[in-house]
Amino acid sequence: MPRFDDAFFATLVELFRWRRDVRRFRPDPVPPVLVEELLHLADLAPSVGNAQPWRFVLVDDAALRRRVREHFLAVNARALAGYRGERAALYARLKLEGLDRAPVQIAVFCDETTKQGHGLGRPTMPETLVWSVVLAIGQLWLAARARGLGLGWVSILEPETVRALLAVPAGWRFVAWLCLGRPEEEHLDPELERAGWQTRTPLSARILRR
Amino acid sequence: MPRFDDAFFATLVELFRWRRDVRRFRPDPVPPVLVEELLHLADLAPSVGNAQPWRFVLVDDAALRRRVREHFLAVNARALAGYRGERAALYARLKLEGLDRAPVQIAVFCDETTKQGHGLGRPTMPETLVWSVVLAIGQLWLAARARGLGLGWVSILEPETVRALLAVPAGWRFVAWLCLGRPEEEHLDPELERAGWQTRTPLSARILRR
Repeated sequence: MPRFDDAFFATLVELFRWRRDVRRFRPDPVPPVLVEELLHLADLAPSVGNAQPWRFVLVDDAALRRRVREHFLAVNARALAGYRGERAALYARLKLEGLDRAPVQIAVFCDETTKQGHGLGRPTMPETLVWSVVLAIGQLWLAARARGLGLGWVSILEPETVRALLAVPAGWRFVAWLCLGRPEEEHLDPELERAGWQTRTPLSARILRR
Repeated sequence: MPRFDDAFFATLVELFRWRRDVRRFRPDPVPPVLVEELLHLADLAPSVGNAQPWRFVLVDDAALRRRVREHFLAVNARALAGYRGERAALYARLKLEGLDRAPVQIAVFCDETTKQGHGLGRPTMPETLVWSVVLAIGQLWLAARARGLGLGWVSILEPETVRALLAVPAGWRFVAWLCLGRPEEEHLDPELERAGWQTRTPLSARILRR
């Protein structure tokens, strides 16, 4: 069994601190073998009943990527229309995705029809299936960062539109559009904090005792 | 900026490989300062709009823990009744939680009423708020493992019952009951695989290209 020593733990903490949601990518290609390695690490994530419900769609087709970006722009314009005054002006200035530049783009789905796991752990909390997919994305995110890559999760999309564009099997629920590549910049603070949208707040307010 | 070198990456891979959903705990206490450190690391997780919607309830009260375990036993008996034949016999033999032994128990919620993040990223995918909480749990899991602790996620509970037992604020959605402590055993394979419930399957079947 491996020993996880203090030096490893200290670097793991740095990994958590320097992870970011990245929207500014260098266009240099990412070797396919590295993408494959990252997917294998995501595949080691916990899943309810060992169902492994995550499905990864690697999107390389330029026309498809363009249509997804056009769709994002439309959905984001509607999102902007939901804000008023200063907040709207601020929202309009945010950069929320790198769909035009990220060299690797992965659409992630949950196969809600999977029989794997035989339903264990899900009768009273069926959403644990899609939550397993989220755990896999979290692991992919950290592994990517440890390999010098940045990941950005785009959620300003209509799930049904993405499903239709990619023609995925019935029963696959859309979870995330991931942009992956070398980041243009490295930061300790989230871009939303730097841009004045939302600062992080103290943890103590998020802990209760019983 | 830190450099994440090959040696760190190799150990990170080992961390992913040796993480487990742990149900067999040694009762030795975990220093509160270590629990606090782990919560701070979970708090560095990504969140939609930087909303940080995770809420941690540290449950120390023995009577409360006992009631949660009794509740689990009732829900699990109903789950067992949903299987037939061999599968039912197998389910009945599984150990699915360590509620009677885990020295640290944390109920995790999503504050669906939070204004933090100003709704960014959520108009078409509101579930990204609760998914942010799942990302924080994933990070807590890995950090715990790196400190020699095991974590088990119990989902065989009724969310509304847990909410009521813990008397949490209105609008807090139950996400997970986490058991945390030193594991009795270390394994490379999931307990559900070892017990013959569900083996892991090849990743290649989970990847599509477009």
